Amino acid sequence: MSDSQFQPVSGFDLPRFAGIPTFMRLPHVGLDDPRLADLRIGLIGVPWDSGTTNRAGPRHGPRQLRDLSTMIRAQNGITGVRPFEAANCADLGDVPPNPADIMDSMERITGFYRRVIEAGVLPLTAGGDHLSTLPILRAVAASGPVGMIHFDSHTDLFDGYFGGTKYTHGTPFRRAVEEGLLDPKRVCMIGIRGTTYDSEDRDFADSVGIRVIPIEEFHTRGVADVMAEAREIAGTGDTYVSYDIDFVDPAFAPGTGTPEIGGPNSFQALEVVRHLDGVRIVGADVVEVSPPFDASGNTAFLGASIMFELLCVMASDAPQA
Amino acid sequence: MSDSQFQPVSGFDLPRFAGIPTFMRLPHVGLDDPRLADLRIGLIGVPWDSGTTNRAGPRHGPRQLRDLSTMIRAQNGITGVRPFEAANCADLGDVPPNPADIMDSMERITGFYRRVIEAGVLPLTAGGDHLSTLPILRAVAASGPVGMIHFDSHTDLFDGYFGGTKYTHGTPFRRAVEEGLLDPKRVCMIGIRGTTYDSEDRDFADSVGIRVIPIEEFHTRGVADVMAEAREIAGTGDTYVSYDIDFVDPAFAPGTGTPEIGGPNSFQALEVVRHLDGVRIVGADVVEVSPPFDASGNTAFLGASIMFELLCVMASDAPQA
Amino acid sequence: MSDSQFQPVSGFDLPRFAGIPTFMRLPHVGLDDPRLADLRIGLIGVPWDSGTTNRAGPRHGPRQLRDLSTMIRAQNGITGVRPFEAANCADLGDVPPNPADIMDSMERITGFYRRVIEAGVLPLTAGGDHLSTLPILRAVAASGPVGMIHFDSHTDLFDGYFGGTKYTHGTPFRRAVEEGLLDPKRVCMIGIRGTTYDSEDRDFADSVGIRVIPIEEFHTRGVADVMAEAREIAGTGDTYVSYDIDFVDPAFAPGTGTPEIGGPNSFQALEVVRHLDGVRIVGADVVEVSPPFDASGNTAFLGASIMFELLCVMASDAPQA
Amino acid sequence: MSDSQFQPVSGFDLPRFAGIPTFMRLPHVGLDDPRLADLRIGLIGVPWDSGTTNRAGPRHGPRQLRDLSTMIRAQNGITGVRPFEAANCADLGDVPPNPADIMDSMERITGFYRRVIEAGVLPLTAGGDHLSTLPILRAVAASGPVGMIHFDSHTDLFDGYFGGTKYTHGTPFRRAVEEGLLDPKRVCMIGIRGTTYDSEDRDFADSVGIRVIPIEEFHTRGVADVMAEAREIAGTGDTYVSYDIDFVDPAFAPGTGTPEIGGPNSFQALEVVRHLDGVRIVGADVVEVSPPFDASGNTAFLGASIMFELLCVMASDAPQA
Amino acid sequence: MSDSQFQPVSGFDLPRFAGIPTFMRLPHVGLDDPRLADLRIGLIGVPWDSGTTNRAGPRHGPRQLRDLSTMIRAQNGITGVRPFEAANCADLGDVPPNPADIMDSMERITGFYRRVIEAGVLPLTAGGDHLSTLPILRAVAASGPVGMIHFDSHTDLFDGYFGGTKYTHGTPFRRAVEEGLLDPKRVCMIGIRGTTYDSEDRDFADSVGIRVIPIEEFHTRGVADVMAEAREIAGTGDTYVSYDIDFVDPAFAPGTGTPEIGGPNSFQALEVVRHLDGVRIVGADVVEVSPPFDASGNTAFLGASIMFELLCVMASDAPQA
Amino acid sequence: MSDSQFQPVSGFDLPRFAGIPTFMRLPHVGLDDPRLADLRIGLIGVPWDSGTTNRAGPRHGPRQLRDLSTMIRAQNGITGVRPFEAANCADLGDVPPNPADIMDSMERITGFYRRVIEAGVLPLTAGGDHLSTLPILRAVAASGPVGMIHFDSHTDLFDGYFGGTKYTHGTPFRRAVEEGLLDPKRVCMIGIRGTTYDSEDRDFADSVGIRVIPIEEFHTRGVADVMAEAREIAGTGDTYVSYDIDFVDPAFAPGTGTPEIGGPNSFQALEVVRHLDGVRIVGADVVEVSPPFDASGNTAFLGASIMFELLCVMASDAPQA
Repeated sequence: MSDSQFQPVSGFDLPRFAGIPTFMRLPHVGLDDPRLADLRIGLIGVPWDSGTTNRAGPRHGPRQLRDLSTMIRAQNGITGVRPFEAANCADLGDVPPNPADIMDSMERITGFYRRVIEAGVLPLTAGGDHLSTLPILRAVAASGPVGMIHFDSHTDLFDGYFGGTKYTHGTPFRRAVEEGLLDPKRVCMIGIRGTTYDSEDRDFADSVGIRVIPIEEFHTRGVADVMAEAREIAGTGDTYVSYDIDFVDPAFAPGTGTPEIGGPNSFQALEVVRHLDGVRIVGADVVEVSPPFDASGNTAFLGASIMFELLCVMASDAPQA
Repeated sequence: MSDSQFQPVSGFDLPRFAGIPTFMRLPHVGLDDPRLADLRIGLIGVPWDSGTTNRAGPRHGPRQLRDLSTMIRAQNGITGVRPFEAANCADLGDVPPNPADIMDSMERITGFYRRVIEAGVLPLTAGGDHLSTLPILRAVAASGPVGMIHFDSHTDLFDGYFGGTKYTHGTPFRRAVEEGLLDPKRVCMIGIRGTTYDSEDRDFADSVGIRVIPIEEFHTRGVADVMAEAREIAGTGDTYVSYDIDFVDPAFAPGTGTPEIGGPNSFQALEVVRHLDGVRIVGADVVEVSPPFDASGNTAFLGASIMFELLCVMASDAPQA
Repeated sequence: MSDSQFQPVSGFDLPRFAGIPTFMRLPHVGLDDPRLADLRIGLIGVPWDSGTTNRAGPRHGPRQLRDLSTMIRAQNGITGVRPFEAANCADLGDVPPNPADIMDSMERITGFYRRVIEAGVLPLTAGGDHLSTLPILRAVAASGPVGMIHFDSHTDLFDGYFGGTKYTHGTPFRRAVEEGLLDPKRVCMIGIRGTTYDSEDRDFADSVGIRVIPIEEFHTRGVADVMAEAREIAGTGDTYVSYDIDFVDPAFAPGTGTPEIGGPNSFQALEVVRHLDGVRIVGADVVEVSPPFDASGNTAFLGASIMFELLCVMASDAPQA
Repeated sequence: MSDSQFQPVSGFDLPRFAGIPTFMRLPHVGLDDPRLADLRIGLIGVPWDSGTTNRAGPRHGPRQLRDLSTMIRAQNGITGVRPFEAANCADLGDVPPNPADIMDSMERITGFYRRVIEAGVLPLTAGGDHLSTLPILRAVAASGPVGMIHFDSHTDLFDGYFGGTKYTHGTPFRRAVEEGLLDPKRVCMIGIRGTTYDSEDRDFADSVGIRVIPIEEFHTRGVADVMAEAREIAGTGDTYVSYDIDFVDPAFAPGTGTPEIGGPNSFQALEVVRHLDGVRIVGADVVEVSPPFDASGNTAFLGASIMFELLCVMASDAPQA
Repeated sequence: MSDSQFQPVSGFDLPRFAGIPTFMRLPHVGLDDPRLADLRIGLIGVPWDSGTTNRAGPRHGPRQLRDLSTMIRAQNGITGVRPFEAANCADLGDVPPNPADIMDSMERITGFYRRVIEAGVLPLTAGGDHLSTLPILRAVAASGPVGMIHFDSHTDLFDGYFGGTKYTHGTPFRRAVEEGLLDPKRVCMIGIRGTTYDSEDRDFADSVGIRVIPIEEFHTRGVADVMAEAREIAGTGDTYVSYDIDFVDPAFAPGTGTPEIGGPNSFQALEVVRHLDGVRIVGADVVEVSPPFDASGNTAFLGASIMFELLCVMASDAPQA
Repeated sequence: MSDSQFQPVSGFDLPRFAGIPTFMRLPHVGLDDPRLADLRIGLIGVPWDSGTTNRAGPRHGPRQLRDLSTMIRAQNGITGVRPFEAANCADLGDVPPNPADIMDSMERITGFYRRVIEAGVLPLTAGGDHLSTLPILRAVAASGPVGMIHFDSHTDLFDGYFGGTKYTHGTPFRRAVEEGLLDPKRVCMIGIRGTTYDSEDRDFADSVGIRVIPIEEFHTRGVADVMAEAREIAGTGDTYVSYDIDFVDPAFAPGTGTPEIGGPNSFQALEVVRHLDGVRIVGADVVEVSPPFDASGNTAFLGASIMFELLCVMASDAPQA
């Protein structure tokens, strides 16, 4: 049972458009705050998009996700889970990036997450572009490779861009495999689609044993069947969940830099998360929400809703820290 | 057969972007106009959103709905119904609200609808927030409780907000049951979803016999099956239809104040209305269209299209006044 | 196998937001360029909307489609086709219209396409409103009527507007049948929906043998079944493909002048094109993309993605010129 | 003194966002309405932009101008004029254009205005693109050439476009001079600026005696001095006032198709109209408001405010009809 | 000299798009926080717009103002003042309003501000609509009437709306005079303009001795001269400063509900505040920023910049608490 | 006199919304094109914003500037200069940046400009963020320090960000002075304003002799007086002109990442450029146009208009290459 001090502000007490916006209206607990030790799940912003090779914007993601997350209430409408009662949760603030230095930023991110992990807190991240996941994994998988369930329209498994640049939002999982952060046999990528330069990424996936479920297979088999396979691939070991908002069709999630036509609808977008029930999640993220391309804010609201579904699963199932 | 004077202006005569925008390009017939007595259905705007506890805007709904309704033509593309030939219809104008006084506004609304009902005219309303339905029901159900088919992502059955405030857009149907305006056993709520504060509203529904069909049940059973049950619940008695635009998924209807992820698509949004065929409709509304959050106008176009589908059913089936 | 000079610029070499935007980053080959003779498929813009009876804007379509088409890469993610390797393709630029003279514009368009056809190049057009297709057909079907597979929410088969005006975006296929450019028995229209003035267009379709598949039939039967019938109707003869972006539901394609609620989703929007495999396509277009109503650019991105799917089919299947 | 029946609806009675939007909340009086004879000034919409050679949109102008004109109240804040008490005013509705036929549209417009003029009503027009002014002048100047004070960033005096097209929004005043509708010696054009193709228009102005006051002269001399000259040029004869919204700087009036940098600010935009006091105005227009480029609606609000200032001057000074 | 704990976060340490957005990146100090006693100036949000008779939206003002205020740095570029070093400042959070009950909301606001005043903290408010100022004045002027310098395009001195409603955003200063909160002889209203219903407000101002400086006088005399008079009117007594963002021209401040054409530009918008130097300010506000009408966020950025200028004056000149 | 092949396409021949958009509709001449040698001025895009410490977006600047530059015609409306006749001009395309590697990008930019300079072509650049100017200066000032006239609201003279990062858009001119690319005594910065972290940048300016003209001085003295001083500071030597769009007030130029309130209006924005007449310009740029914050495109149109004014001055005055 959670502490009363970690409950979100209710919209019955303070209207949801009011107040300083923290993630889901939770209290802000900085890394130096002694209450950090009491937490089970920490919501963290990574306002950073220096790895973006196309249209930038996710640096603004955490702020807009916080803003729209104030529309989230305390109880899951379908599963009935009340995550803030199941586990102590708080907003840990943003990692301070260096927008003009990629390597420095990655070190800052890894350093921040190491402190979170050491405090026994499970990180739930609001990105940031997808390169953010690499420095997070360096902290999360410090003691050995983890599995990963990855929702995305891209594999992000390329080797290099622009004549050999190794760190972009199209390369994080190639690096993570090379660095031993991911166990490729326990990685499942779901929703892959769109035009491609070539098949280099898919060939790499095949060569190391990553399972790629393209969108046409997803649509044919349906959510339940695909997710059963994903859970089986992840198995019982520690597993990271990485959710790129461009997994969802751009009509539902226009606010992203590299949309691809033909993705899941919004009901499926949440449903896949509910099917993670039982997975041993050691961290999760929602990345690539790009406010400059999201005039209505509805992409961020979808992103915040996905974060809430992740939180419900993590609060119920998380390994005892 | 309708009178020729109540036909909408054709886009073949006057382009649809031209002319003073009335609902569906119908003539404007004010309450003091002697032609009121000739009407069977009156389209009415309720430009009011003082009951909104979250993001306001539906006060602008009637104007934008009128504007986009000029895109509607004379004949239903699927059923072939030509409502303006089946029944005399007109735009009755807007109820004048008092934006700074909720109780005064509700009296004004009830007073306006009493005159409409007394003239034997069926009201089809463009809201306004959902609190609008309460003062409308006070006129429509003046002689006894009615049934209701309610499309929404929220039950609007809460008891109070902000320490006991009884009249908000989250409470109208709690009040309507208490006031004997609704027969709860003949009420069916469809599409309910999203996070919730708690289960107070659902517990109340259960206690009085309101049937709530949550969204996951809707998606599983499909439109035809769900609507067959709804028709059975409504039965043969007088029934009101209340359609909150946030029933529809926010990708299709972004222009609303309290969207919830995972709703029906736009084909289903219209299809559910066609399945109302045979219900004894004594009034209907489309509420919570919020133009400030609908930059493209497509939510209002969807709202106007729903109003047209409602009109087609009402014109075919309405009880003889 | 295509020439290396007709390859698109890769996003690995030049980021996709960079560079002068041609269709799919192909080289620009004007009609006077000697390389025209080497091409198999030419992408052409028709920046013209003088036939629009409702909300204008498609005159800006080609430029926005070029802009967003730079998000397209070289390989089809589902079929694996690499169209730029299968056939020499280039951007032929825009037809110069006369925005203040419809008849002059139609002559200019027909003249432009005659030169393209004479050079043995298959035209793939970015409109422009749907009247554009009429002067294109005058060039494409110069030697005899062709079949047509037509994706749209409207039949565009009306006889006249505003008291007899014969050339609008609602009349092109009536004219095309009258002029002997289309073989109506080999014409299939898919996705028709929305309110109508009357049934004049459908009566005409019936009278000449055009097959109209309304949207409710489309949703009931599914893509594969409907497209099998369409392919059968088109048969083995020369066939034109005309794709009005308002075929797709307005949540996925808001940027158009006359949207209709309840259309296909974006996965289906691409899927129908892949089912054209085997059709003898002599030309194709994507029309009615209207940038002033497409603030996010996602309609244009969908339009460019449809053009790419068309290109993949045309590059694989095109008759030897 | 005006009739009580021609007073606008007060915002104290009906909030300004409510009600069917007519120009300035005046009653709608169609051309067949017997009340037409009682009017002194008629507000008319010309929803037409077929003469636009660049970015279209003014076809939507009248509707958006009506919408935003509901923000206008009864009394001029600076001059204290109450135009609706000084003269009977009404909304005469829109001229029905033929969007697909320029010549037909011009005949329709001239026909409509002839009836207005014959009824002794002074027309105040909401365009429409600037070609609208030509068919209006054909009615207004039926009995002899009039003077004109013209606010614009362009002279609209070109001879032809696209190889000789004579009727575009860049040519109306060349035609009007040729047709004897304008007395060029009594024409003054104010605010001219922006890049030009060449000096053909200015050479024509010089050759016939039209006075052109470019923007740098306007900024140097100031409003009072420039307008004194304009009044002197117009003299005591019948004078038309044509106000292209692109006269104003695009920061204040972004919603237009051919903006030019460096124009007057919004205070000057209204001030120049107040300096028309004493001019014998026989008609006036505000044209080129283009809603698709005016997301905030503030251009239309400025346009409506200019219409109100024109109305104040016309109501005080208009020749007895 | 201020405490180091009350310094804003520097953009050199944490990029300005990062972090949980408090006003000007100051620490959040709630009313129950013991640090309240150390503060000299408290920044407070009043997310409330129930008094709005026209287009609503200012309920979202505090959040957007906080967001854009993160673009503000530590030092005034013109005066060199470093307010956060001159005085302890903090973000006190938002007053919790009751969006569905005006009287309750006013009591909540007054109660909140009483606690602030009692703690010896000067309030600088981000509204909210202009009715917010009335309950604030009830706390600020608890011990006697204060003077007021009021920037606005409206006097907000009307007696009632909609048949006698006394509490709207058009009536606060009528009430404040009646309640003895304002000394009308020490009140100066600057920038008044726009159309009016009648002269009732101005007549009231004259009758009680409020000085109204209309916009044409402002433009003629210039900032320095007008502000010298305003300072003289306010004199040496306690003075409140109320700044309605619609004082500024809508090109610079589109995000507001009741804009009026022809106001000051943005340089003047800040300049008038610097001329308050020497005034004994006991509280100040910036109201009527309406995010739904401020797509770019630039109105909120202007509002935050005005708040910063007010802070600079208050930090230098505030009476010793 | 220029060659006929380097004339822009006229809007009389091809409407301005048509055609593949190059800068000002000039021919595209790549660096490998032999026609490069015939050019006097080359328009170049630098689609790069990796130096941005705040809100990113200028990577999209060149494309949007090209798009809106098609609204520019051949002749300066005020000076009468016809730059395309005075000098051979062309669009040289974009420098290919590496969005994920700052140092690599700077080398690519310098390399590109070296080739341009070596060909005897004067570069006129469309940025890109302001860090772009540093690698450009490395090419332009290869043979010795140049003077600079710099329009901006920021000095961009800071030493480092985020704990010592030396290359950001806030540091280019500090670096340029240190590298000997600029002669600080011949540098004049105009329009500086906004809040600041501290005075480090101004102290540096003072210490090396850079003249900074803050905005209040600009507004007091006026354009002519300020520009006379700027010309005197630049003297007769080689001078670079760098124009940050945030020099202009954000009402006129909202599309930028770090706006500051209170800047020049749009007439002044062009006027300052005309006062550069006589300066020995060896290169110029317009930077920091950020399309994601420029929904209307009017910032880009202003930017393109400034580029045209620069072109007029450069074409008239450029040193013989």
